[in-house]
Amino acid sequence: MRWTVGERPMKTPFQKQFVVGVDLGGTKILAAVYDQHHRLLAREKKSTKPELGPAGVMGRVAECVNETLAAAALPHAAVRGVGIGVPGMVEPQTGLVRVAPNLHWHDVPLGRLLKTRLKIPVTVLNDVQAGTLAVQQLGSGRKLRDFVCMFIGTGIGGGLVLRGEQYRGAAGLGGEIGHMVVVPDGGPKCGCGNRGCLEAVASRSAIVRRIIRGIEDDKRKSIVTDLCDGDLKRIRSRILAEAYREGDELVHEVLDEAADYIGIGAANLINILNPQAVILGGGLIEALGVKLMRRITNSARAHVIGAGADRVDIRDSGLGDDAGILGSALAARSFLGK
Amino acid sequence: MRWTVGERPMKTPFQKQFVVGVDLGGTKILAAVYDQHHRLLAREKKSTKPELGPAGVMGRVAECVNETLAAAALPHAAVRGVGIGVPGMVEPQTGLVRVAPNLHWHDVPLGRLLKTRLKIPVTVLNDVQAGTLAVQQLGSGRKLRDFVCMFIGTGIGGGLVLRGEQYRGAAGLGGEIGHMVVVPDGGPKCGCGNRGCLEAVASRSAIVRRIIRGIEDDKRKSIVTDLCDGDLKRIRSRILAEAYREGDELVHEVLDEAADYIGIGAANLINILNPQAVILGGGLIEALGVKLMRRITNSARAHVIGAGADRVDIRDSGLGDDAGILGSALAARSFLGK
Repeated sequence: MRWTVGERPMKTPFQKQFVVGVDLGGTKILAAVYDQHHRLLAREKKSTKPELGPAGVMGRVAECVNETLAAAALPHAAVRGVGIGVPGMVEPQTGLVRVAPNLHWHDVPLGRLLKTRLKIPVTVLNDVQAGTLAVQQLGSGRKLRDFVCMFIGTGIGGGLVLRGEQYRGAAGLGGEIGHMVVVPDGGPKCGCGNRGCLEAVASRSAIVRRIIRGIEDDKRKSIVTDLCDGDLKRIRSRILAEAYREGDELVHEVLDEAADYIGIGAANLINILNPQAVILGGGLIEALGVKLMRRITNSARAHVIGAGADRVDIRDSGLGDDAGILGSALAARSFLGK
Repeated sequence: MRWTVGERPMKTPFQKQFVVGVDLGGTKILAAVYDQHHRLLAREKKSTKPELGPAGVMGRVAECVNETLAAAALPHAAVRGVGIGVPGMVEPQTGLVRVAPNLHWHDVPLGRLLKTRLKIPVTVLNDVQAGTLAVQQLGSGRKLRDFVCMFIGTGIGGGLVLRGEQYRGAAGLGGEIGHMVVVPDGGPKCGCGNRGCLEAVASRSAIVRRIIRGIEDDKRKSIVTDLCDGDLKRIRSRILAEAYREGDELVHEVLDEAADYIGIGAANLINILNPQAVILGGGLIEALGVKLMRRITNSARAHVIGAGADRVDIRDSGLGDDAGILGSALAARSFLGK
């Protein structure tokens, strides 16, 4: 966008080139501030504490944004907009969060309330949509017209870019790739109420659940116990990655099976949509990297139709853990630019 | 398209308003001729005999077209174009069939050869694409912007209409919904070489295979044996439909399980793409109708994420067995009209 001299000079002065991206998760809030070249200036983290309710969580989001700006030594007046990615159904036009299960939110006017608090324009969008936007504009989907993102974390979310544009379906509810049924007839129960969903066998939560069961119920030995100082609730992607690298048998068994299922999910998407690439992101993928990617790719190859194995291009996002905040920041910039 | 007086009058005179649609299957060739209001004038059928090779099959296609025109008492000169749907990978621009597994064809210049033989312009397209076109323009997808077709027959093919246009993926190879893996870990072997594909458990071929195994290996009683006069190779959709209506236990068992898997496939598509509707077509669906549709819908509802059951709109194509020929005819008209 270009301003000619004198055009709306007070509302969007030249110095307002910074945007803040926020990733509001069920357990943590991440915020980061970027300059006009998408360079990271500062980044802060805070626990979400959903038990505080919408007002309390919103206060924590505002604090996190303020701390990020303070860390970058930027005044509020220098910020063009805040983008916030939310794990749920969102109306981007109004900034209303219709439902966010992990936060226990229903019809929270997040955009309006946060704008009042921060005195900065706020753009609200779905977190997976934000991550996909980042992959498309700055990540490994940059030069692609047709691709699918799979974000593997607490849950499994999907973003579709078809003919160069994000596709969310007729009512904006598409991309629920975590709820593809991959184990019919009584697979493990999923958070959505069904059984055998991909998310129920291959998300980080499912993986952690199986490892805890292995250690507690089946009395399996695993270095995970030591790595989290005996408190199995503290298992994070980083700990899984370390145990995997060390060759821990239980962790290998569970993660390899999860990778095989993720590969089946990727193959289904390839068979249905024939994208140029499937791009994997999310904490688990970023922490585990190459080895898991290879296993996922092999499983996908084994399940793609016919001689389609050469059509299997599975990549990581190229954005590390930052796809979510970066995408929210991009949304703040581009939505405001319209 | 409208002609002003004097514009290309010799090439496309007013009387050339008829088009022929051909559905070239692995077992039979169907041809039909339509007027400019898509009214059916005549319809003929012939066995394919793929063992005759491309030249032989092409001869049979030409005969079938000629017989159809004769039945409608139309001269070749009255026909604007022939559209032919082929079960394989096709280059619509050149009319080349790159590969058609059921016909054992590789790189057959069908469009060119058939045009030489018939002296009528020929449009070649994929059969599923043809069926989807018919559903979109004249069937139950007429008023929809986003929908998915599932054609259940010898195999299972899929057509995606997204944002009002058919979507075939980056390399035109999308829509292979029959090769979604729905039974991991050693499901039945599929024609594509993999295991546990939807097609391997829910296509008519898979259903017939299981019924024959039930009768021959497990010595199950079934009225199918009588209905096909003891020759189990003669089981067709019509026979399955009759046995189902009569309450045959084996047929119910096999068809109900197939319906449940089709429902899982539909749910996966709904979760991924959030279409306005999933539209079912193909011989099996047309023959079995309402009862099977209800079971498929219930299975889909049980596998759609969260409170999404109200998002499950599963319909039949509204075109009976004719989606394929009708779509090929439409393609002949619209491609030539460009």
